[in-house]
Amino acid sequence: MTTHGVVDTPAFMPIGTQGTVKAVTPRELREMNAQIILGNTYHLFVRPGLDVIKHFGGLHNFMNWDGPILTDSGGYQIFSLAKLRKITEEGVEFQNHIDGARAFISPEVAMEIQAGLGGDIAMALDECVPYPCEYDYAAQSAELTTRWAKRCKAVAASLRDAHATHSDAATKQLLFGIVQGATFEDLRKQSAQAIVDLDFDGYAIGGVSVGEPEEEMMRAVESAEPFLPIDKPRYAMGLGTPPQMLEMIARGMDMFDCVLPTRLARNIEENCTCQACREFSRGYIRHLIKAEEILGLRLITLHNLHFYLNLMSQARTEIEGGTFDQFRKAFVAEYKTRDAMMVE
Amino acid sequence: MTTHGVVDTPAFMPIGTQGTVKAVTPRELREMNAQIILGNTYHLFVRPGLDVIKHFGGLHNFMNWDGPILTDSGGYQIFSLAKLRKITEEGVEFQNHIDGARAFISPEVAMEIQAGLGGDIAMALDECVPYPCEYDYAAQSAELTTRWAKRCKAVAASLRDAHATHSDAATKQLLFGIVQGATFEDLRKQSAQAIVDLDFDGYAIGGVSVGEPEEEMMRAVESAEPFLPIDKPRYAMGLGTPPQMLEMIARGMDMFDCVLPTRLARNIEENCTCQACREFSRGYIRHLIKAEEILGLRLITLHNLHFYLNLMSQARTEIEGGTFDQFRKAFVAEYKTRDAMMVE
Repeated sequence: MTTHGVVDTPAFMPIGTQGTVKAVTPRELREMNAQIILGNTYHLFVRPGLDVIKHFGGLHNFMNWDGPILTDSGGYQIFSLAKLRKITEEGVEFQNHIDGARAFISPEVAMEIQAGLGGDIAMALDECVPYPCEYDYAAQSAELTTRWAKRCKAVAASLRDAHATHSDAATKQLLFGIVQGATFEDLRKQSAQAIVDLDFDGYAIGGVSVGEPEEEMMRAVESAEPFLPIDKPRYAMGLGTPPQMLEMIARGMDMFDCVLPTRLARNIEENCTCQACREFSRGYIRHLIKAEEILGLRLITLHNLHFYLNLMSQARTEIEGGTFDQFRKAFVAEYKTRDAMMVE
Repeated sequence: MTTHGVVDTPAFMPIGTQGTVKAVTPRELREMNAQIILGNTYHLFVRPGLDVIKHFGGLHNFMNWDGPILTDSGGYQIFSLAKLRKITEEGVEFQNHIDGARAFISPEVAMEIQAGLGGDIAMALDECVPYPCEYDYAAQSAELTTRWAKRCKAVAASLRDAHATHSDAATKQLLFGIVQGATFEDLRKQSAQAIVDLDFDGYAIGGVSVGEPEEEMMRAVESAEPFLPIDKPRYAMGLGTPPQMLEMIARGMDMFDCVLPTRLARNIEENCTCQACREFSRGYIRHLIKAEEILGLRLITLHNLHFYLNLMSQARTEIEGGTFDQFRKAFVAEYKTRDAMMVE
């Protein structure tokens, strides 16, 4: 339950990097039954900047999306896109990737920006280490992430107290903590325990899907999962392929976000019921993609998002019916066969 | 009146270069009350190729547009895009701009391709000379265009005879002749008379909007116009800016096509009632364009096409009410003032 509505889980969150889910309108997202979308704090902070979005009354108004929004902390993009990063106890200094302007993000700044964006769910600032990562660095980094999480939590609490009598979005903004620990089981466990001790509204597993083999990713999630409370949402960050999402649901995960459906063209299945496949032939869509037409990107994105959102909807139905396990195994087996066939 | 419906004039035809009006769906075109669109024979011939489009039952089915379509002859793109052109009495040899494959288009081939595309209106093959152009070349070229027009007309007549008992689209395809003559008044007059003598279903003025000053363009149209029959549609090819279209309507033109609304970002007016302006703020659209987001191109295209289509709709109303002349003068004056202000 968020300020802008209920999110049924498991849920896939289309990514709205720069204040738009690539190539689609909010109306199309609603028609596809997208429940919640993700906003990238780093991108929005760099362009158009927080003042512009505040001027328009927050991210919901700015992009004309009235459903729930989760904003990330900006940390992941600082570590993957920005230049000249300098990490200290205080926060991260960096130069953005657009015009190279210097900026500084601390847990407090990340919370302030996310409060300004006005999303329904904010994420604590974390350090996302790359793969592979030395054990010692991963251990120190996970501890830094815990100290930052504590500071984020303190800001959220003081915002809540200060505005206790108001009903603005910031006071109702949920805050999720992020578990790190790279590919090390003991670090994942320690991180999960430390973050859960701080008592967040939900928990994310970060530092996965950063290039590690799939088994390591599964083990990282399995190592942390037993220490997460069962009554709070669990968000596996940056995942994944359709089979990976189902495997993660089997491992207790509830929320996902992934660039795949809005970045990659996929092969179009037969019998798809999405708007693109209902109205246009596969031959036509193939022509549009070859000719690099914008309509091709639109139709592929509609198709892919429909596929992801529909998969989550079906997973919810199978879970309710007690048949999720069979569904998952059949889907994963069939998906692998099809992938193998498509390579030929 | 075409096979796929009536076109009220004056009419603007959005350009569907590669089997899609850039960035928008046929559904959006219908919502904007687009009456007829233009298909580029050259582009479709090069990719995906005539066989693919025939396989899907023609261009209407291929792109899922059930309204009227006008196809050009391909000549203009051969002269502006293709490489190594060689023009003879017989036709044009060229290498396409995508993979350099050699091809040959004659009046007969142009008619055959357009019959395969199945548009409602086909255009005769012409030579479109560049600006500036020597008088002697322009004269010879206009005569070649007339001889090619005669051959196109002969193909259309034989197709009509051969299929007289059928009701397929090709038998009902209308054919427009094209007046050339560059910027020379006497050549424009001679070309118009020669083309009209051949008796087409409509007449186009080609070789305008190719870089010549606006006065020369107006004079070229004025030189040809008196020789066009008043009961057949007149199509000013490749035009234009909004004031140019109104000036052309005042000079008796009925149909227009122009790449401006689907290629250029325009400044967004206040109080616009298009879907983009109704649902999104100008600040948000500006952000999307700066961030090079596909949604930005979609929204700008919706806005621009709405503006063009709405201008034609308003022109029709003013013509019916007998107030077109005042409307045109006021619009042109206001448009120029606004342009001047935007430069500051």
